[in-house]
Amino acid sequence: MRTLAKDIRPAAERSGDTVEVYGWVHRIRELGGIVFIVLRDRSGLVQLVLEEKPDLTLESVIRVSGIPAVNPKAPGGAEIRVLEYECISRASGDLPYQVNGDVSKTGLETILDHRPLSLRNPKIRAVFAVQSAIIEAFSGYLRDHDFTEIKTSKLIGGGTEGGTGLFTVDYFGRKVYLAQSPQFYKQTMVAAGFERVFEVAPAYRAEKHDTPRHLNEYVSMDVEMGFIESEKDLIELEKGLLAYIFDALNRKNSVDLALWDAPPLDPGSVSRAPTVPYDEALRIAASRGGPGGQAPEKMFDLNPEAERLLCDWAQDEYGIGLVFVNEFPRRSRPFYTYPLDEGRTMSFDALFRGLEITTGGRRQENYQAILEVLPKFGLTSEGLEDYLAIFKYGCPPHGGFAIGCERLTQKILGLASVKEASLFPRDRKRTAP
Amino acid sequence: MRTLAKDIRPAAERSGDTVEVYGWVHRIRELGGIVFIVLRDRSGLVQLVLEEKPDLTLESVIRVSGIPAVNPKAPGGAEIRVLEYECISRASGDLPYQVNGDVSKTGLETILDHRPLSLRNPKIRAVFAVQSAIIEAFSGYLRDHDFTEIKTSKLIGGGTEGGTGLFTVDYFGRKVYLAQSPQFYKQTMVAAGFERVFEVAPAYRAEKHDTPRHLNEYVSMDVEMGFIESEKDLIELEKGLLAYIFDALNRKNSVDLALWDAPPLDPGSVSRAPTVPYDEALRIAASRGGPGGQAPEKMFDLNPEAERLLCDWAQDEYGIGLVFVNEFPRRSRPFYTYPLDEGRTMSFDALFRGLEITTGGRRQENYQAILEVLPKFGLTSEGLEDYLAIFKYGCPPHGGFAIGCERLTQKILGLASVKEASLFPRDRKRTAP
Repeated sequence: MRTLAKDIRPAAERSGDTVEVYGWVHRIRELGGIVFIVLRDRSGLVQLVLEEKPDLTLESVIRVSGIPAVNPKAPGGAEIRVLEYECISRASGDLPYQVNGDVSKTGLETILDHRPLSLRNPKIRAVFAVQSAIIEAFSGYLRDHDFTEIKTSKLIGGGTEGGTGLFTVDYFGRKVYLAQSPQFYKQTMVAAGFERVFEVAPAYRAEKHDTPRHLNEYVSMDVEMGFIESEKDLIELEKGLLAYIFDALNRKNSVDLALWDAPPLDPGSVSRAPTVPYDEALRIAASRGGPGGQAPEKMFDLNPEAERLLCDWAQDEYGIGLVFVNEFPRRSRPFYTYPLDEGRTMSFDALFRGLEITTGGRRQENYQAILEVLPKFGLTSEGLEDYLAIFKYGCPPHGGFAIGCERLTQKILGLASVKEASLFPRDRKRTAP
Repeated sequence: MRTLAKDIRPAAERSGDTVEVYGWVHRIRELGGIVFIVLRDRSGLVQLVLEEKPDLTLESVIRVSGIPAVNPKAPGGAEIRVLEYECISRASGDLPYQVNGDVSKTGLETILDHRPLSLRNPKIRAVFAVQSAIIEAFSGYLRDHDFTEIKTSKLIGGGTEGGTGLFTVDYFGRKVYLAQSPQFYKQTMVAAGFERVFEVAPAYRAEKHDTPRHLNEYVSMDVEMGFIESEKDLIELEKGLLAYIFDALNRKNSVDLALWDAPPLDPGSVSRAPTVPYDEALRIAASRGGPGGQAPEKMFDLNPEAERLLCDWAQDEYGIGLVFVNEFPRRSRPFYTYPLDEGRTMSFDALFRGLEITTGGRRQENYQAILEVLPKFGLTSEGLEDYLAIFKYGCPPHGGFAIGCERLTQKILGLASVKEASLFPRDRKRTAP
């Protein structure tokens, strides 16, 4: 019967009976005639001790049986004195990439070019253990709050948000688009009486950016909720979600967080995160910009530098690098955003540790109001019939937001690029592996 | 404070204090000078009693306050005597589709054409409550068994399974494809040391079928697992999964199942489901085909009729309409399938209530063996470099399967077409809404 690496220490303490382990040869080292192998399995690392040098290559998959023994100096506090081993799958000796090396000394392009191998590195693997836990906590929290998980089409017939920034698909000779967001479908579900829905699914942006903050395909964690009064209800929901995610990670992924020296996640501090109206946010950013800071009236939108300055400010003032900016001006939000007054909207962004991780807001649910606003955005109801039908037949006040899963993962771990938080990232140049 | 429809009966029994409800006007009926409105919210239906006819249209969203009272004849066993109401969002009076009608009397195309409205029907809504619960149970069971959730790219550079049946995407002027399956990525993750992974995500088939069993975009519930011996380990895993899903649905979705008169789901019977080798499956199907049955030697593959006959046989013999067919011939499985002997493979299908819901099998993990088998399938290693790299550097014996989420939903509820189990289905003709 197989024992996992993480259970060798308890096994050694319990009985010292022979154990069987399976895994990958992570490291081989000789010291004074004794050979130490570090074996890697899904649960972690364990040291094997052999008296003779085995005929094994790094990354080969092996089965080993031996006697477990406590050794405080070994990883996990125990080791196995090998009685016999078998090579199940021999790795070729020409590894093009050093799997067990120091990630920080390897360039990102190399890591991504060798993704099937680089994912074997425990530190890189930790990124995706954390990501899996984020998705689990996101879904679990929302289910506990009566949200229904939905799966909507990613192939859309019309460009409801305009054709720019969309990838086109040849669909049996017709042109359709990859969805930028499930937003209109989420709204449909709220209006259909589900009231509260969420979706975790790919989203696509055909933008030519190639920066540490952009992906052309990303995992969007979407929420939509009926019977809200303003974007403030959504901000409260997102605070609850983030606190729950942080708590789950602290409980289950402390080892993964430690591998990255991730800054502490304090669930209790999330409720303290400030909400700042857009105009004030510009002023705060400008005031913290020092001599190089732009005057607020010259900043049309929150640029990446302003996002960073605002999070630093929140960290200093409130003890958490999380800010909600609301009341964005009408001109910088889509037509469906609910107005607060002539110039401002019931919209918000969440900025976390210097990066926008969320955009959201209340949507206009009044059919006549939508028809009236369309011309101001250079749009007509043509092509929007399916969208308009949502509001024609009874729709509650509602709104929602989306959290970029890779961006949240990146900022929780402190990764330099969002691409590091995508298993198989797609950017302008990269479509493989 | 809002009370949900499902909580009106308890509220009436507890105190009879005034309650406030929000929802949609599902039905209006006058009887002897009294007006009855059925209000629909995310939790169900509740009857409102008014003394005067209100100025309301069907499907309008309203807020109501009134006195709850027990009434065994009303839906949910209680009603609300209305003190005041407010129309929050008035529905246009020209509903193009009868939301509160009998679903079975409406054609599928009408239901799908009016998706934003047809989803308001409680019976149609139940389909997606069940689907959400299926995804929750699938993910929960696998997490409990140490599987990591992954999110892989749906844009693939090369056609690893050949370019036929793939939709093409214009990716910054280059041609890429929508993934038919995350299988190669799942295998990458197993080999990378995650050992056990799952993914719930869209998958694409550019096939021109337009049948009650096909979708061009569907939700694939994928599993991949290392350190297995044969497909039989995977069949055991799928049995555990299905029993868990059935149990979860019985516990949480009994009302939804009842709306469709769904056949009983007996979690205890799943372990009894037979596993039948392909050759024997053909013989059983032929023997049950009656006068019109094909001779087994004339059946090249399990056709839909044979799938139905086999499930009927399992229902009769084992008390559950679930059969696992294994040992498919080499010629009917892809190159990467692990051989059992010269002619047969370690592969399987799961057939449930007359329909294939799963295809899976052990994969070949031996690098040399893959290189040798490629020419037999008319393939070369060119374009497969990334795939081959998985096996070159140490890969455990492994395999996996995928459950079609819409097909499972369809068969659990007894829906006539798989399209009914897709929120926004895509077929050859349909790309909207």
